[in-house]
Amino acid sequence: MARRNIEVCLSPLLAGCHDFSGKCVVIIDVLRASSAIITGLSHGVQAFRPVAEPADALYWAGKGYVPAAERGGQVAEGFNLGNSPFSYQEGQWAGQKVALTTTNGTRAILLTMAAKQIIVAGFLNQKAVVQRILQFPGDVVLFCAGWKGQFSLEDTLSAGSLLFDLHKYIIITGDPAIAALDLYQAHENSIGQAVMGSSHYLRLAGKGLTDEIAFCLKRDLYTTVPVLIDGELVAIP
Amino acid sequence: MARRNIEVCLSPLLAGCHDFSGKCVVIIDVLRASSAIITGLSHGVQAFRPVAEPADALYWAGKGYVPAAERGGQVAEGFNLGNSPFSYQEGQWAGQKVALTTTNGTRAILLTMAAKQIIVAGFLNQKAVVQRILQFPGDVVLFCAGWKGQFSLEDTLSAGSLLFDLHKYIIITGDPAIAALDLYQAHENSIGQAVMGSSHYLRLAGKGLTDEIAFCLKRDLYTTVPVLIDGELVAIP
Repeated sequence: MARRNIEVCLSPLLAGCHDFSGKCVVIIDVLRASSAIITGLSHGVQAFRPVAEPADALYWAGKGYVPAAERGGQVAEGFNLGNSPFSYQEGQWAGQKVALTTTNGTRAILLTMAAKQIIVAGFLNQKAVVQRILQFPGDVVLFCAGWKGQFSLEDTLSAGSLLFDLHKYIIITGDPAIAALDLYQAHENSIGQAVMGSSHYLRLAGKGLTDEIAFCLKRDLYTTVPVLIDGELVAIP
Repeated sequence: MARRNIEVCLSPLLAGCHDFSGKCVVIIDVLRASSAIITGLSHGVQAFRPVAEPADALYWAGKGYVPAAERGGQVAEGFNLGNSPFSYQEGQWAGQKVALTTTNGTRAILLTMAAKQIIVAGFLNQKAVVQRILQFPGDVVLFCAGWKGQFSLEDTLSAGSLLFDLHKYIIITGDPAIAALDLYQAHENSIGQAVMGSSHYLRLAGKGLTDEIAFCLKRDLYTTVPVLIDGELVAIP
């Protein structure tokens, strides 16, 4: 296998420091866009179309999509569906397409359109993502969605966990990737505890979402890897 | 003492995620602006005026300042002085004022002008900076200058090292600060080795600057704390 590099973009505001063209970009928004998309596609949702704004989700609703919007950690005003993985877990939307906008995750996807391939990762599908990355022939960027542009601990730990599985096969490149791997190794056996100290945990726990957070941190519950094809995330089993 | 918070800005591109007004901002550009300024003021330079562009340094030269400019890790074209701490170590510029522009450090200073107090820190003056921060009555932001907007390992480790000394007295706030402290603790006894893996080390080592890097990582060689007063960094002993 040719020598390949893997780097980490720690926040959408740092996207300008990276070149995505021709690469495999792995979008990580553990709490909760990644986790909701992985869960939805694993429970029969046909596709997620990432869109920038709630108005865009409504536009696609006019074309037969189920509109979904999250803002500030809650279902956006005027919507019945957001980015809670629990709302997708019982096959409620099986066979349907969802047009989804979230504070961080879907915006990250829209920033990296120059990539050759865009996939979505979290703890929920890590092993499957590792296999997918190993099959990709070029360089890789792990893209942490963060929170409103800010660095987030849980996404960086998820990136570090992927790096831990990949570092024997792909060259860890750049300071953000080194730091993400170091951080993961510092918390390898206590990811849940580490995330409990994070800003986003406190934000969501304050809304009574601790069960959901625990769900999002589960490892390898699914083998679904969401891949962006023609503007829609679909499951590649 | 009232409860106070300390946060970390991991890169100038993330400055928008922080509110600097009324706070003490601590600029960290270990390789090499911080280290050069601390060294210069410790060896008699009267003041450093941080400026954005080489043209600005030349403007101030017309007003009696020694012009200094670094770009891309080297003395900028047309200048005799850059940001090597070694060029300030022998009292060459004692009693003079220097107008300095660098790729990262001086730009970081210019981004945080809303702060109540701006000081400059590195490994070279860490203990003195800790004392200074403890005397400041409000919140604190450690501002990592990074490299061309990108997160840098050595600045984050220096921030983490400050947090380690301060965390008993000031509340560590936000994911970037938690991560910086964790990273420091993972490398506490091997900072030099950790920095040797960093992008900026490889960049500067390629220019033969390994001795300078080793110098910049020395702890508490100086007790000088550069403080910005009327647009100039001066030594508060």
